[in-house]
Amino acid sequence: MNRHFDTAPGADEAFLARLEGRFGERYSASSAMRERFGKDESYHPSIPPDAVVTVRDTADVSALLALCNEHRVPVIPYGAGTSLEGSVSALHGGVAVNLQEMNRVLDVHHEDLDVVVQPGVTRRQLNDHLRDSGLFFPVDPGADASLGGMVSTRASGTNAVRYGTMRENVLSLEVVLPDGRVIRTGTRARKSAAGYDLSHLFCGSEGTLGVITEITLRLYGVPEAMSSAVCNFESLQGAVQTVIETIQLGVPVARIELLDPVQIDAINRYSKTDYPVEPTLFLEFHGSEASVKEQAETVAALAGEHGGGKFAWTTNTEERNRLWRARHDAAYACKALRPGGQIWATDVCVPISRLADCMDQTREDLDANGLVAPIVGHVGDGNFHLVLLVDHEKPDEVERAQSVHERMVHRAIDMGGTCTGEHGIGYGKLDFLEREKGAAVDVMRQVKQAIDPNGIMNPGKVMRGRVEPSRTTP
Amino acid sequence: MNRHFDTAPGADEAFLARLEGRFGERYSASSAMRERFGKDESYHPSIPPDAVVTVRDTADVSALLALCNEHRVPVIPYGAGTSLEGSVSALHGGVAVNLQEMNRVLDVHHEDLDVVVQPGVTRRQLNDHLRDSGLFFPVDPGADASLGGMVSTRASGTNAVRYGTMRENVLSLEVVLPDGRVIRTGTRARKSAAGYDLSHLFCGSEGTLGVITEITLRLYGVPEAMSSAVCNFESLQGAVQTVIETIQLGVPVARIELLDPVQIDAINRYSKTDYPVEPTLFLEFHGSEASVKEQAETVAALAGEHGGGKFAWTTNTEERNRLWRARHDAAYACKALRPGGQIWATDVCVPISRLADCMDQTREDLDANGLVAPIVGHVGDGNFHLVLLVDHEKPDEVERAQSVHERMVHRAIDMGGTCTGEHGIGYGKLDFLEREKGAAVDVMRQVKQAIDPNGIMNPGKVMRGRVEPSRTTP
Repeated sequence: MNRHFDTAPGADEAFLARLEGRFGERYSASSAMRERFGKDESYHPSIPPDAVVTVRDTADVSALLALCNEHRVPVIPYGAGTSLEGSVSALHGGVAVNLQEMNRVLDVHHEDLDVVVQPGVTRRQLNDHLRDSGLFFPVDPGADASLGGMVSTRASGTNAVRYGTMRENVLSLEVVLPDGRVIRTGTRARKSAAGYDLSHLFCGSEGTLGVITEITLRLYGVPEAMSSAVCNFESLQGAVQTVIETIQLGVPVARIELLDPVQIDAINRYSKTDYPVEPTLFLEFHGSEASVKEQAETVAALAGEHGGGKFAWTTNTEERNRLWRARHDAAYACKALRPGGQIWATDVCVPISRLADCMDQTREDLDANGLVAPIVGHVGDGNFHLVLLVDHEKPDEVERAQSVHERMVHRAIDMGGTCTGEHGIGYGKLDFLEREKGAAVDVMRQVKQAIDPNGIMNPGKVMRGRVEPSRTTP
Repeated sequence: MNRHFDTAPGADEAFLARLEGRFGERYSASSAMRERFGKDESYHPSIPPDAVVTVRDTADVSALLALCNEHRVPVIPYGAGTSLEGSVSALHGGVAVNLQEMNRVLDVHHEDLDVVVQPGVTRRQLNDHLRDSGLFFPVDPGADASLGGMVSTRASGTNAVRYGTMRENVLSLEVVLPDGRVIRTGTRARKSAAGYDLSHLFCGSEGTLGVITEITLRLYGVPEAMSSAVCNFESLQGAVQTVIETIQLGVPVARIELLDPVQIDAINRYSKTDYPVEPTLFLEFHGSEASVKEQAETVAALAGEHGGGKFAWTTNTEERNRLWRARHDAAYACKALRPGGQIWATDVCVPISRLADCMDQTREDLDANGLVAPIVGHVGDGNFHLVLLVDHEKPDEVERAQSVHERMVHRAIDMGGTCTGEHGIGYGKLDFLEREKGAAVDVMRQVKQAIDPNGIMNPGKVMRGRVEPSRTTP
């Protein structure tokens, strides 16, 4: 038991016994389970909870939260564990809520283009479920994240430029509040002007306000045709300018990804491809047969005006899959660049007019500090990822990586951008949120205090509050 | 002075004198000003504030709110006064904040497709400003509303099916909190996973949490080509089914409006048109020349399968304007249907699979009660408007209208929909919000209490709270 509470008795033996009494074999305090549920896919180490409870329905969650609230014990929701800023670390101990068995697709409404799911359903599981329906769910972060986690971190991915992020695709949530009450934040209506937008308050709150137990999401018809394209550029500026003009023209591009030369080199080595080692756009177009052809031709013309090389586009499924497989494997390709290094993936998002500058200056800073770090961007959104490969055995290298990272985030904020486009704050970006939002963080604290007065929900994440993290990591 | 406060001294003579001292000629307590600023465009009567203060910048608003907060005096933000649920009525007296002189377009960012405006800028003013830029702002409620008001009611209009509502188009807000603090809720980055989504908390809060003093909005490139179309149907079901399949197919239709026979008849009389008096779709397509042709042909084929009559489509600007002028004049056309009657415009939104049923049952109820009320819908969103024409001199007719209205809203909620798609709650739909959201309204109250502990911001709107409206109207 290693909680550190100012205000509360916490998860003492008596409490844990009570929990075990209520949840039986779905309760575990084994060190293997605790270790596993205290860790996400990020560079943050495991910080284990005191116990893990596997819930099966909303009533389970409600009972668990009411009990924890009564005893002032922290609660940390856990979906697929694919977060990147330590969102599941048990900074103050407490109970991890394992939502993986709440993984049913409850209702697909074909005419309304929506679906109701439990939070443990993963994005791939949903799309497998939809396979023969002619519908799909477009939001695609790198990992096979749970949809509850994706709502909680306001996740996005390569399709956001056309289909939006989780923010644009959540219609309604069922949420269990810290005291066990159950609310529904919206309806299945496409739009509503009825009261405060609680769906969007919970979307992105990283489990600090309650536990999401049901999600209604928008779906889309599978497009009649898809084409993909790849084009290398003499300069980053040329690639970004092509994207800016593509969007200004209203070309409804579905995916538009920018890979810098370091990333292309890594992919060539890993995927045995032979892309020119230059700034490169990977694109995808969705629409009718005629439309995807027209879209590709329009962008090809723009690319030609901005130093683009060969614009190779295809509707061939095999070639399309090969391209996106290479993009998808970018993370593995990065890893292979530096076998001893650990991946530290981080992201920022800036107004697109500042994107090339932000990426260029970051690259210069990386080079000056002798760091290996590919850059890959969801360029249509102004969002890019820096994948730092750091040998954690070398304190000097870790320090240089931290300072380059800090300068990149400050640069993005100074350019009118945000400290994270899609990864969230967790406890890795607390200071950056303060820098970006200033007094607005006080309002977040007021809202947190109002909804979770005992501070039991995922304490120490998103913002510092009454209960300070006592076990932060270097 | 006619305030009714539980907790606070309110706007007594000494307070008003202090206000006049601070704001000079921008302070007014004349009965003409008070009458005007206590009234919106709805059927709700004027409920005048005690005074009107015309603000010119954020510092003015901050000083005003700090003063009102100190003295527990209600504050009611006023943009263009085009709200439809009594959002500007001074239910508890207090001070109306006239934002009409904060009407500058501050920055247009062409490459980033965004614009920064003050809240008093109206939607037409913004589009006039953008005229030669190749950009436009798509959200178009019926009235020439202020953008601050549109954010506050989460407004939308005919373009929402393609371009979204205010919810999808607000990037960031500057807000003055009740105690005078100034915060910024977002950045100009297209997406962000940084902390609670305060932009969306304030969007739709109807002035009950603070005063919006600056708005960053998304813009869009003016499409290369536009075509419009009109098509009548044998049945409402056929029209709605055509829309459902259009959206399933991913046709990126820009506008898709459904007018019922009563509305078409009204338009024919008012605009001297000769549309068949049947359920009718008005459509608009945006894209390249080839794309708008293809879109129109696709929808024409679907319409043919569902009892559609002649599908007349055109890219001719004059014909297009004639069509949308007729749609735009629908409200005036309604008025002319019943010269003695007063317009009572209300809206609901349902999952589109239930739309035809909801409209049909509402029409039956209207007929059974001898009421004149055209129905017109933003059908792509499942949103429709009922325009009741009621002679307020006839209490029996008012009562029948109220009960038909109540049944319609309950019907929409029971079908999985919402009590308002785009008009807001004001104080006209308080009970309906409770019915729709249940315990979630308690969470809204907790948030309100946290951000506005003295209850000064537009009291009595959106939800009932500590401070109950004392002067509600019949």
